[in-house]
Amino acid sequence: MFQQITIIAPGLLGASLGMAAHEYGLAKRIQVWARRAESRQSCEDSAWCDQAFSDLAEAVQGSELIVICTPVDRITEIVRDIAGALSEGALVTDVGSTKSRICRLAAHLVPDHANFIGSHPMAGSEKSGMQYAESTLFKNRACLVTPIEESPSGEVDRIVRFWRAIGMEVTSVSPEKHDEIVAHISHFPHLLASVLCLQLSRCPEAWKAFSGNGLRDTTRIAAGSPEIWRSIFEENKEELLRALDGFENELASIRSLIHNDEWASLRHRLSLGQSYREELD
Amino acid sequence: MFQQITIIAPGLLGASLGMAAHEYGLAKRIQVWARRAESRQSCEDSAWCDQAFSDLAEAVQGSELIVICTPVDRITEIVRDIAGALSEGALVTDVGSTKSRICRLAAHLVPDHANFIGSHPMAGSEKSGMQYAESTLFKNRACLVTPIEESPSGEVDRIVRFWRAIGMEVTSVSPEKHDEIVAHISHFPHLLASVLCLQLSRCPEAWKAFSGNGLRDTTRIAAGSPEIWRSIFEENKEELLRALDGFENELASIRSLIHNDEWASLRHRLSLGQSYREELD
Repeated sequence: MFQQITIIAPGLLGASLGMAAHEYGLAKRIQVWARRAESRQSCEDSAWCDQAFSDLAEAVQGSELIVICTPVDRITEIVRDIAGALSEGALVTDVGSTKSRICRLAAHLVPDHANFIGSHPMAGSEKSGMQYAESTLFKNRACLVTPIEESPSGEVDRIVRFWRAIGMEVTSVSPEKHDEIVAHISHFPHLLASVLCLQLSRCPEAWKAFSGNGLRDTTRIAAGSPEIWRSIFEENKEELLRALDGFENELASIRSLIHNDEWASLRHRLSLGQSYREELD
Repeated sequence: MFQQITIIAPGLLGASLGMAAHEYGLAKRIQVWARRAESRQSCEDSAWCDQAFSDLAEAVQGSELIVICTPVDRITEIVRDIAGALSEGALVTDVGSTKSRICRLAAHLVPDHANFIGSHPMAGSEKSGMQYAESTLFKNRACLVTPIEESPSGEVDRIVRFWRAIGMEVTSVSPEKHDEIVAHISHFPHLLASVLCLQLSRCPEAWKAFSGNGLRDTTRIAAGSPEIWRSIFEENKEELLRALDGFENELASIRSLIHNDEWASLRHRLSLGQSYREELD
């Protein structure tokens, strides 16, 4: 599909993407840029990587597709750094979990002969790092592609086809709608799991021994990288606070049912939550 | 270990217990009481069950150990109903997720020649019903045994040994301490997952397609039976509200960090939550 692609910052997502692109034959040549010499070595030792660079401009020269896989707060810096080295017709995308600020800024940073169209393959895990990478990470998972009004439709189709080719279920939405959706279904649930762990970290140590699978499931994502999530929360601050408002209203209403012994109403609310959860599977 | 035990209300926990007691040879004879004829038939068709009764008094006569496996709001009624039929030296326990009210009341309801000592084998699941039962359900899981001041220590030892014999890690605590602990590590996390699902159930239906494993994990327990959880929340109302107070304080403090752009402090809090979660595994 592409002659050459460049993956910038091959962590869990970037390295998995390299593996998948290689396995499905989506690029004749796969290059990476990595900050650490050790990461570059690991990549060059892998079957999917043709060459690893320490210089950003060199890494992107001649590539038709560039995928930026850094934490969200570094994405636009990278776009700025590579802008001058982008080839004619280059398509730049990212895998960041927030989109509004990134997509609006990046569209202005790339030269006229190239395009930036944001992507969010929803295929993370509480783990991070290349050592957990696998080519099947994206299989049957959702991917949101977030063009802006000016994005050429041919380029949107191209990035959509790329994600579909590695097995993803792709939907296009505006960057703003994206941020609203993921604030509710991903960022806020993550915050909730972290706050629950924070509260429990103040309880006696001995109580840990009594925790069951329920608590383990509910809090699993709180094991995610504090730095990665800090940057996501910072980027999506406004929508995150809106999701928090909605949750607090819901929680206050549940508190009042419990406080006032309105058990039939509480049971009804629990069954609405149960239906939602059952339909997720 | 026991000549005869009776399991009252063989759902997921009761039937699993029957299977485990049978497999480990802990009782010469295992009887059950079940309300529905269909459940009685299922039990009698199973290798672990010797006889199923529709009459409570008949079901407990001659049994040394009686385990009540109904939802928490029915346990003391059952104790009242079987009190007159208990044999000399009979030990009555339950598997309820709340303990204070049940243990204090039940101790007064059983005759002088018998004892009630509460148990909470923490081995549930979001599933309920005999069809999911398995003898390994209790293996390496925590069990809290909740004697009161008057409970004879020999009887406490007896029930502790019983749960240990099916593979559980048993700790004795007062019924009040039990309720405080589980409000924090089980009941409140369950409420939180339900409230999150309730909030998400008000979002556009289409957003479900974008949910990832993180959301699935975080909300899994919200699929639990609304009726069972309503009764648990009702029984443990006071401790649940206390856990909610603590959580709301924590959440308000996190909200203020986000609102005021105190990202370094937020990152520190996230890392405290991460440490707690990592130590759970």
